[in-house]
Amino acid sequence: MKLFYYPAACSLADHIALIETGLPYGLSGIDREKKTEDGRDFLSINPKGYIPALELEDGTILTENQIILNYIAERSGKLLPEGGIARWRTLEALAFMSSEIHTNYAPFFRDFPEPEKVRAREKLKKAFAILADQMGQKQFLIADEMTIADCYLFWVLMVAPKSGVELPENLQACFDRMRVRSSVIQAFAEEGLA
Amino acid sequence: MKLFYYPAACSLADHIALIETGLPYGLSGIDREKKTEDGRDFLSINPKGYIPALELEDGTILTENQIILNYIAERSGKLLPEGGIARWRTLEALAFMSSEIHTNYAPFFRDFPEPEKVRAREKLKKAFAILADQMGQKQFLIADEMTIADCYLFWVLMVAPKSGVELPENLQACFDRMRVRSSVIQAFAEEGLA
Repeated sequence: MKLFYYPAACSLADHIALIETGLPYGLSGIDREKKTEDGRDFLSINPKGYIPALELEDGTILTENQIILNYIAERSGKLLPEGGIARWRTLEALAFMSSEIHTNYAPFFRDFPEPEKVRAREKLKKAFAILADQMGQKQFLIADEMTIADCYLFWVLMVAPKSGVELPENLQACFDRMRVRSSVIQAFAEEGLA
Repeated sequence: MKLFYYPAACSLADHIALIETGLPYGLSGIDREKKTEDGRDFLSINPKGYIPALELEDGTILTENQIILNYIAERSGKLLPEGGIARWRTLEALAFMSSEIHTNYAPFFRDFPEPEKVRAREKLKKAFAILADQMGQKQFLIADEMTIADCYLFWVLMVAPKSGVELPENLQACFDRMRVRSSVIQAFAEEGLA
């Protein structure tokens, strides 16, 4: 499998998940002209034009962060509780972070007008409060064991300072614990991040 | 199971899926004061405050449209191809419609300033083109059999005129076919829609 990524972008979640599960993987960065490291046009690989994309052994391209994370988990049998409500809570948290947090980072990534930033901050505050309630005193969002929801949560929390919204204490503490985890350190090194 | 819904809102996707699968279900509309039909405060049921929410037999509340659809499919063994890439393509399409279409309807639902509408229309045009390419000449988005992706697609296509973006021909034709399907007619009747 090969993960197409931009350094420090939301593909970091999938990168961390790949390392955590022990699945063999390759990486291909995308440059500013949307070329892959082996010189292909990324739009010919993923017409949506955005990362992450995961190329399977047979050449199939999977897209959408939540779905790639789910695939990595099912393929490895790791990072996703097998039955019961915890599995649904994991998938639910991924969908929630995608639509209620990730999309509300757009005004800060692209410097949209201030009223849009104000509106986004309100939505982010509410969403972080819901995640904080869900985490409570657990080590991770769903349980005391890490899941794919935490891989995405790590990226979501890493980007939060760009929005100017302060993180609830338990989410910040979770981020700080994950930041020194060996999978995260390895992913940062492989993406050329500090 | 009980589905909490607003008439004609995106919960219509789950309502159609419930009918298609033949699972037993109940419905509870939410009024303008966020009260359920049996007088409960909806925020005490789903602190996120939005629909759809699905109450399971043991009182567990599932949220997030994509996840409720996935749950209905797994629970019934219907509307989701069992293995192989078609299952992943179904889940991928749900994630794509959620983040690239549904979120771009917000400027039209809430009458945001015109520049936001212009930007949203550009994203919607691109997203509809991708869905049209994916559908090609098939009867439904993923295959010639209906999946949960089509339940959400139906709602997405129903709302498109609000944005002023014209639908590609094959998507419009799929909408027209689904509109006269008995499950859709039943869902409209149960939600008090014309």
